[in-house]
Amino acid sequence: MALPRLALVPGEPAGVGPELCVRLAHRENPAALVALADPAVMLEAAERLALPLELLPPEAAMAARPGQLALQPVLAATAADPGHPDPANAPSLIDALLLGAEGCLEGGYDGLVTGPVQKAAINQAGIPYTGTTGLLSEHAGCEVVMMLANPVLRVALVTTHLPLREVADAVTAGALERTLRILHGALQADFAIERPRIAVLGLNPHAGEQGHLGREEIEVINPVLEALRGAGMDLRGPLPADTAFLPGTMRGFDAVLAMYHDQGLPVLKHSGFEQAVNLTLGLPYPRVAVDHGTALDLAGRGLADPSSLFAAVDTCAAMARARRARRGVPA
Amino acid sequence: MALPRLALVPGEPAGVGPELCVRLAHRENPAALVALADPAVMLEAAERLALPLELLPPEAAMAARPGQLALQPVLAATAADPGHPDPANAPSLIDALLLGAEGCLEGGYDGLVTGPVQKAAINQAGIPYTGTTGLLSEHAGCEVVMMLANPVLRVALVTTHLPLREVADAVTAGALERTLRILHGALQADFAIERPRIAVLGLNPHAGEQGHLGREEIEVINPVLEALRGAGMDLRGPLPADTAFLPGTMRGFDAVLAMYHDQGLPVLKHSGFEQAVNLTLGLPYPRVAVDHGTALDLAGRGLADPSSLFAAVDTCAAMARARRARRGVPA
Repeated sequence: MALPRLALVPGEPAGVGPELCVRLAHRENPAALVALADPAVMLEAAERLALPLELLPPEAAMAARPGQLALQPVLAATAADPGHPDPANAPSLIDALLLGAEGCLEGGYDGLVTGPVQKAAINQAGIPYTGTTGLLSEHAGCEVVMMLANPVLRVALVTTHLPLREVADAVTAGALERTLRILHGALQADFAIERPRIAVLGLNPHAGEQGHLGREEIEVINPVLEALRGAGMDLRGPLPADTAFLPGTMRGFDAVLAMYHDQGLPVLKHSGFEQAVNLTLGLPYPRVAVDHGTALDLAGRGLADPSSLFAAVDTCAAMARARRARRGVPA
Repeated sequence: MALPRLALVPGEPAGVGPELCVRLAHRENPAALVALADPAVMLEAAERLALPLELLPPEAAMAARPGQLALQPVLAATAADPGHPDPANAPSLIDALLLGAEGCLEGGYDGLVTGPVQKAAINQAGIPYTGTTGLLSEHAGCEVVMMLANPVLRVALVTTHLPLREVADAVTAGALERTLRILHGALQADFAIERPRIAVLGLNPHAGEQGHLGREEIEVINPVLEALRGAGMDLRGPLPADTAFLPGTMRGFDAVLAMYHDQGLPVLKHSGFEQAVNLTLGLPYPRVAVDHGTALDLAGRGLADPSSLFAAVDTCAAMARARRARRGVPA
């Protein structure tokens, strides 16, 4: 079948995103990539790496060979100065993200892969922005779930970037049910897992120890799990977080649902940071981001590890294929 | 130098503790062990494993060879029925723990190693008990810190068995300073690390992201770290929990201080559960426990893995030696 066609947004021009995309363009990819970026930024990144780079028009993406990159120009306001983000370039970065999202909604792209973004630089430009996940969710009008994945583990979150003292109240039955429905649906549609096995962690240590260490498991989590089991989902838990990630236990699940950020992500990053990717589930299209920041200290020096971006492209391409297969498009 | 002399409490007689102690008695240990237990329970456990076991009087501990175990009798009320704890045996279990603790305080023992305990069985006997750590802390009149360790990582906790919604308020400047002083002192005295490098995690995701995701790092944690750095401690942080455990980052620290249970223990158990041990720091003596439960489903079947108990004895013996060396007792 034809390669999935993915929109690629390198992210902050002064970060490591552009040079990682140059390395990506030198690899055999399981997708036809179209970079949404400033051509000068990409060519300068290639020059710094001393790697050749030939830019092609977007319609030539399917034919790109290693060393070539199809590109849809989205012009930056100023030249990129590695390590020093310029808020003047923030609008074009947002434009690139929305152009990619729009193309996915319209069917021109089968998925969206994004590099690292510098939140502060966007906010300094006066643009309200809390993260690309929120931007895409709002653009598509969908509720979404954040999931991190590496080759051995998938961890989705009920709450994400929230002060710890607000977490317990934010884990409502509604939020939990919504998250589980999106996660379950995405494991089926995007990962072709017919009957996903999901481990749900407790909120409290030892999953509350029968109410001795908190009652949210009894009052909030268990009733939701019971109801969704009744609807046919294979849900384990609520499990104590400290033993759910034992290697032998983990192998029995397709994904772990953590109640909050620091309950689930330390293990995920410990067990395979380089190849970890950040997925947005629940959108009408697959979206995968790198699981690292702009690494301003490394930018322009050719030292950044492209493994996460490579994994993001591979994951997004696989998700796009799974969606196609589900729609009955011949493989 | 003479072997350290350690008190060994097998724990719940109906759990896997007794059979693990029989396996321990068949190993070359770096310590002279004295079991505080019911001799019948130990001999029956050996019989179930089809292993010989010769019990010696406590004063013969130094001369014990594999297959022999020195024992100070602490009689249980009823025979052990593997898998079925009898609350009637709870008082003798508490007696054994306190006998060991007392012996450590009086200098008869150099440390205390404990097997798994069934909290519910003790509570059912009408004895108020929240865990052995609390019991020993109260007995010695000391504030203590719980630390988990495996061969690659040490994780100490500011708060332990607390509902998640109570964590943020419990991480006070006083609690944090007390914990750091105990942890720092123990790394010096028990682990012979002259200048311990301690990584302190933030309370909030991304360690609060400069106040955008919570202000406890700015208002509580940072001032304590600054003050203690002024007192000469090598403290890093507050660090985001999700990146502090990256293997390359971890190697730069002697211990990680997590703010709460599920922030630190999932990685620790994921990265080496079998050999993980649970330490109580701050007591006048080293105390190390296994990091697993009574495993009632395995009890009496000879299937339980003794790695954690072996590691507990090795760790406690090494701690006892470090304390001796510090006191100038010839090695």
